[in-house]
Amino acid sequence: MDKIRVGIAGYGNLGKGVERALRQNDDMTLVAVFSRRDPSQVDVEDKQVKVVKMDDVTSYQDDIDVMILCGGSASDLPKQAPQLAQIFNTVDSYDNHAKIPEYFETVDASSKEAGTTSIISIGWDPGFFSLNRLLGEATLPEGNTYTFWGKGLSQGHSDAVRRVEGVKAGVQYTLPLEEAVNQVRSGENPTLEKKDMHRRECYVVPEEGANKEEIEHKIKTMPHYFADYETTVHFITEEELKREHSAMPHGGFVIRSGKTGEGTNQLMEYSLKLGSNPEFTSSVLVAYARAAYRLNKQGDIGAKTMFDIAPGLLSPKSPAELRKELL
Amino acid sequence: MDKIRVGIAGYGNLGKGVERALRQNDDMTLVAVFSRRDPSQVDVEDKQVKVVKMDDVTSYQDDIDVMILCGGSASDLPKQAPQLAQIFNTVDSYDNHAKIPEYFETVDASSKEAGTTSIISIGWDPGFFSLNRLLGEATLPEGNTYTFWGKGLSQGHSDAVRRVEGVKAGVQYTLPLEEAVNQVRSGENPTLEKKDMHRRECYVVPEEGANKEEIEHKIKTMPHYFADYETTVHFITEEELKREHSAMPHGGFVIRSGKTGEGTNQLMEYSLKLGSNPEFTSSVLVAYARAAYRLNKQGDIGAKTMFDIAPGLLSPKSPAELRKELL
Repeated sequence: MDKIRVGIAGYGNLGKGVERALRQNDDMTLVAVFSRRDPSQVDVEDKQVKVVKMDDVTSYQDDIDVMILCGGSASDLPKQAPQLAQIFNTVDSYDNHAKIPEYFETVDASSKEAGTTSIISIGWDPGFFSLNRLLGEATLPEGNTYTFWGKGLSQGHSDAVRRVEGVKAGVQYTLPLEEAVNQVRSGENPTLEKKDMHRRECYVVPEEGANKEEIEHKIKTMPHYFADYETTVHFITEEELKREHSAMPHGGFVIRSGKTGEGTNQLMEYSLKLGSNPEFTSSVLVAYARAAYRLNKQGDIGAKTMFDIAPGLLSPKSPAELRKELL
Repeated sequence: MDKIRVGIAGYGNLGKGVERALRQNDDMTLVAVFSRRDPSQVDVEDKQVKVVKMDDVTSYQDDIDVMILCGGSASDLPKQAPQLAQIFNTVDSYDNHAKIPEYFETVDASSKEAGTTSIISIGWDPGFFSLNRLLGEATLPEGNTYTFWGKGLSQGHSDAVRRVEGVKAGVQYTLPLEEAVNQVRSGENPTLEKKDMHRRECYVVPEEGANKEEIEHKIKTMPHYFADYETTVHFITEEELKREHSAMPHGGFVIRSGKTGEGTNQLMEYSLKLGSNPEFTSSVLVAYARAAYRLNKQGDIGAKTMFDIAPGLLSPKSPAELRKELL
């Protein structure tokens, strides 16, 4: 069997995760990693893998079946995705929810023009969480959908903590509020805003001589980020931060609580408990790379989201095997 | 907007559930219920709805966009599905796992010949549980999948209990063994058989003067059904059985426990807690009826399973709405 030839564009946590995930999938092979950095500075795990300057990506048009875009959503993807979709089938994890419609249109125009297939916003949220919001709503039209995040490291809130005067380093975890979770699981269908569903925990390394009370006060009263939330601040040492808070766990759950017939309660729940957020997202990207390749073979071009992809396309198994083994 | 015109073939618990679910979906309308019984004996909830003898189904070819098949998997569906697929787009909940491949082939031949679209084995297992087994395996190729059922009423095991001498009436619930669940959720990846994952609880109404000890012994030692399982037998009155055990709750969960990178634990879990098993299955059937209609409009004919259906086809919302609201 010919293997699906994959390229990685961008080699941060996500790119490294894709390299690792590809090793778990026998029907795919990694052709090259593309980076804007000097190739000698890009430390890929498998030293057999070629590292190429992003400027030379065009010359790989015939060697790569799917390019997995591992850049960030803020500035990399909006630029790279429409460009690379002109040359390759692509998969990305664009996660700026508010701008997805606009992003979709741009990538769609580009890939339709080139005859490529581009799957956008793949991962878990957007991604499997979105899928479960859709399945819940379509199956139980009378009901409510609740998305809880955590326990997980939030990059944006960690940055906010680190900007506070007197803070040397720190991280922030988002956690679901158990009371809210129990209320939802019981079928009560409460009206809840994000702040009623989550609490925040900060682990802070103070600068030497900094006023801890002041730091704690500044964090807890920070508008938008913390003021509306139940927030806890723990002061720790730099060693402890390194030792206990270097992993990037995340997770959460999507619950659809609905009624059928004469008020019968029905509850659908999807949950993830991830040891590494980027490694999981990478694994999802790789499964959808298989789908992008197959769709393009079928002549199904343009931009797609998880909503447009038949799940069978994600598996290396044939439709007949899937019916026999997994249905 | 023209509504999708739906027919129901077979009016038991599932057919009644479909009638109720259709009322929650504004883009669909129920045209008629078809039954092998005398129409005057079929007690549909909405008295406006026509009840028609199954023998006259052919004359409705132009009036129905999708026929939802609500017969049983043992004898109804293997006969009805290939026949009705000659005339209509169909959706069914065929759930005899071992025979699905053969059933698929028969229905596929029939619907391809007629140019119809037939979605088979829809519900939650086979159905959403199968979908999550596939997503788990495709995303985390190195790992194990565990399916737990319950707490739920098992029809087959309840029948077995009722066949025991001295038993007047009774029901059996399957329950997940909490110890096994916790082991799996902890990421231990244990090797477990069905009997290591579940226990069984029986609620039995004894005949007057029957020997309870003997009944309990006969149940607990019954091969295949109970002998291998942790089984509890409770004796209750007929009134209690009616009052406490008339609902048809069910549920369970599918867990994929896998590893990424250098042994990072990743856990995906999908769970259902259903107040009524047939009403939930009916709701899933109705969502997939929408997909059957749309696929046929696109010229995508033949038999399909949940693995072949892009999730977006289940929602009444447009792809652009879905991207904006749910992704």
